[in-house]
Amino acid sequence: MISKSIAVNNDGHLTIGGADCVDLAERYGTPLYVFDENLIRSTIAEFRESIKKHYGGNGRVLYASKAFSCKEMYRICRSEGIGADVVSAGEIYTAVSAGFDPSLLVFHGNNKAYDELLYAVKVGVGRIVVDNFSELKNLESIAESLGKEVNIILRIKPGIDVHTHDYIKTGQIDCKFGFALENGEAMNAALECLEHKGVNLKGFHCHIGSQIFTTEPFCDAAKIMIQFAADFRDKSGVTVTEIDLGGGFGVKYVESDDQQPFDSFMATAADALKAECDRLHFPISFVYIEPGRSIVGPAGITLYKVGAIKHIENVRTFVSVDGGMSDNPRYALYNAEYTIEIANKATEPKSFVATVAGKCCESGDLLQEHVKIQQPDVGDTLAVLTTGAYCYSMASNYNRIPRAAVVFVKDKESRVVINRETYEDIIKNDV
Amino acid sequence: MISKSIAVNNDGHLTIGGADCVDLAERYGTPLYVFDENLIRSTIAEFRESIKKHYGGNGRVLYASKAFSCKEMYRICRSEGIGADVVSAGEIYTAVSAGFDPSLLVFHGNNKAYDELLYAVKVGVGRIVVDNFSELKNLESIAESLGKEVNIILRIKPGIDVHTHDYIKTGQIDCKFGFALENGEAMNAALECLEHKGVNLKGFHCHIGSQIFTTEPFCDAAKIMIQFAADFRDKSGVTVTEIDLGGGFGVKYVESDDQQPFDSFMATAADALKAECDRLHFPISFVYIEPGRSIVGPAGITLYKVGAIKHIENVRTFVSVDGGMSDNPRYALYNAEYTIEIANKATEPKSFVATVAGKCCESGDLLQEHVKIQQPDVGDTLAVLTTGAYCYSMASNYNRIPRAAVVFVKDKESRVVINRETYEDIIKNDV
Repeated sequence: MISKSIAVNNDGHLTIGGADCVDLAERYGTPLYVFDENLIRSTIAEFRESIKKHYGGNGRVLYASKAFSCKEMYRICRSEGIGADVVSAGEIYTAVSAGFDPSLLVFHGNNKAYDELLYAVKVGVGRIVVDNFSELKNLESIAESLGKEVNIILRIKPGIDVHTHDYIKTGQIDCKFGFALENGEAMNAALECLEHKGVNLKGFHCHIGSQIFTTEPFCDAAKIMIQFAADFRDKSGVTVTEIDLGGGFGVKYVESDDQQPFDSFMATAADALKAECDRLHFPISFVYIEPGRSIVGPAGITLYKVGAIKHIENVRTFVSVDGGMSDNPRYALYNAEYTIEIANKATEPKSFVATVAGKCCESGDLLQEHVKIQQPDVGDTLAVLTTGAYCYSMASNYNRIPRAAVVFVKDKESRVVINRETYEDIIKNDV
Repeated sequence: MISKSIAVNNDGHLTIGGADCVDLAERYGTPLYVFDENLIRSTIAEFRESIKKHYGGNGRVLYASKAFSCKEMYRICRSEGIGADVVSAGEIYTAVSAGFDPSLLVFHGNNKAYDELLYAVKVGVGRIVVDNFSELKNLESIAESLGKEVNIILRIKPGIDVHTHDYIKTGQIDCKFGFALENGEAMNAALECLEHKGVNLKGFHCHIGSQIFTTEPFCDAAKIMIQFAADFRDKSGVTVTEIDLGGGFGVKYVESDDQQPFDSFMATAADALKAECDRLHFPISFVYIEPGRSIVGPAGITLYKVGAIKHIENVRTFVSVDGGMSDNPRYALYNAEYTIEIANKATEPKSFVATVAGKCCESGDLLQEHVKIQQPDVGDTLAVLTTGAYCYSMASNYNRIPRAAVVFVKDKESRVVINRETYEDIIKNDV
């Protein structure tokens, strides 16, 4: 199976974390997001132990919570002893509401509002990743007005161009995030950080892309970042102590995705980083990594009920489900690939070629085209796998469809972690 | 200006419906959706009077509310004496909550759930547009269980391929909606409707696409639909009395969009329809049209505050605003074009080429690339025009960003019609 969480039970039903998907759909209704909490926790542990092993514990895993943010996720991160990367005041608010230690939050974003920065500093967010000069000025003024020191990390574009979908490619110069290295912007920005009062430059951050399946780009990034930190030391006399290498570890959506053990990314990047430190006589930094998709993606699935099936001779068969781009816009946005199973027919051959369509009144509302599934019938429970990341978080009320509930399964027991929206919720803010 | 609602006042500020955009941004905060209620009403009136003129009042305008659904829009439709097209129980619920007469609702969708159909029939929705055989069976069972008759319209794919963006093209055979005409599916489905008890076939529906700027496709569609109704009469002996020609009237997003007076679509389609009725000795039907985008699109704008401006030498300049794909995913989804103005510099030349970026932590979160705007500065109020349709309705809480407020301006006075979401709203359903 495509994910460790997924199996088939004696009834021939798909299971997630040992729980029967047909039962889950029956009990909680559809569409339904279901996560295997054990896989979330074991993946976090894999990253955490990796940092222990390769950096002697001199580092921290930050869950990139934009992949899937809710109170329960921050509680899990807390109980697993990791930090989190947040990208808005809304995510900070959610984390703090869940009792998460704000000093373990790292705040990202290309255009943090003044009020968001003020809020972050007030509640004691641990690091603010500075993306541009406006933020630097705003932070100086906030630090002064609150009489606080603000610990910052500077976002660098290391100039690495990872081959992946255009929309999820970052790190190269033509990108809205951070400062480019190759044209001197990054060095100027780093030097400028030293000129601002109340702002402590702790280190540098980069993020080279998403869904990366090879270790080389991470090694290159580690080397480039250490080289940059050493150059900055030589120019300024200041030795920063932290390097944030971002995320981007690829996960398996379809069989052809060659997901690597996450520790192999960590091991090779650590070797590269340490060798570069050695070469440049630079002290080994405290290292952050920011896995998001890799922690929650393969742990989550979405369950739907099959409605209308429309076979168009010589064209295709549309299998419509009771959700769609409102709960998962990734096919509409990126033509993202997914593996799909009919949960109540999990042992049957996948001999049917379907276009799985959503229920939104929009032709582009498809979940997958020309995908192999088991022979579908009205009333079947259809499962789209690897939907733990960037599905609930990107969900909308398009067509005024209520957002689906989120259920966590742990040791075969299920519980709701986000309640299904009601129609009353939808009109709540309508005057 | 691109829309009748937009002008420039003596302060050199952009106005909508006579209200100063800079003042609106200041008063209500940003991002902010603003609509000119007078343009909404006058456009509705234009369509309504068109039907009076060309069909002697023998027809009805249905506002395609998926373009922008909220209680206030249904109130406006009610007060203007038109019906509405709804696509989910959530839209029906919103309409009914606003006191809208359910008998003036027409219910669309390629995969209406049993519970949605039950709800629609219970509250007395006027017409249900049957899309597939599952619905037909479900409606028969619902009609029987409630002891009611259900008035239906059958959705036909007329085989017209309107050249527009792939994702908003419908009407051709390779489409999830309705029954294809050219392969005999539509006729079989129509005949089958007569076999189901409690279900009254009132007529046929088609929708040929979106953002259409020429009248020919509408004429073709009208002719094809009448031809089909006459064929059906000849085969079954049943003369249906209603034809729903859908929507798709193009609006002006950018100067090159050649928006036609809506009455010209109506006039030419009515001529074609009447000529075909004459030719086939078919009684002129009661005609529905379903304008959505054309009613609200040009009446709405979105106001943002300019944050970080990042000039990358020889690459481009990113102008970041305090919203993005979370309030308007249309560029990320379709590379949709928009006209952008800096509201506080509306008289200045648009000599600056910018990429307007959102604040979401995603490289693809752009609102427009290489667009001409006035020279931008941090703190400017930036207006994206023609955002009344499919922006608020598709908004998400991606990055846990609260959804923006919606303000209506009428005779220069503004009022909130949808309140801005709070952080508390965002975590409301988190356990």
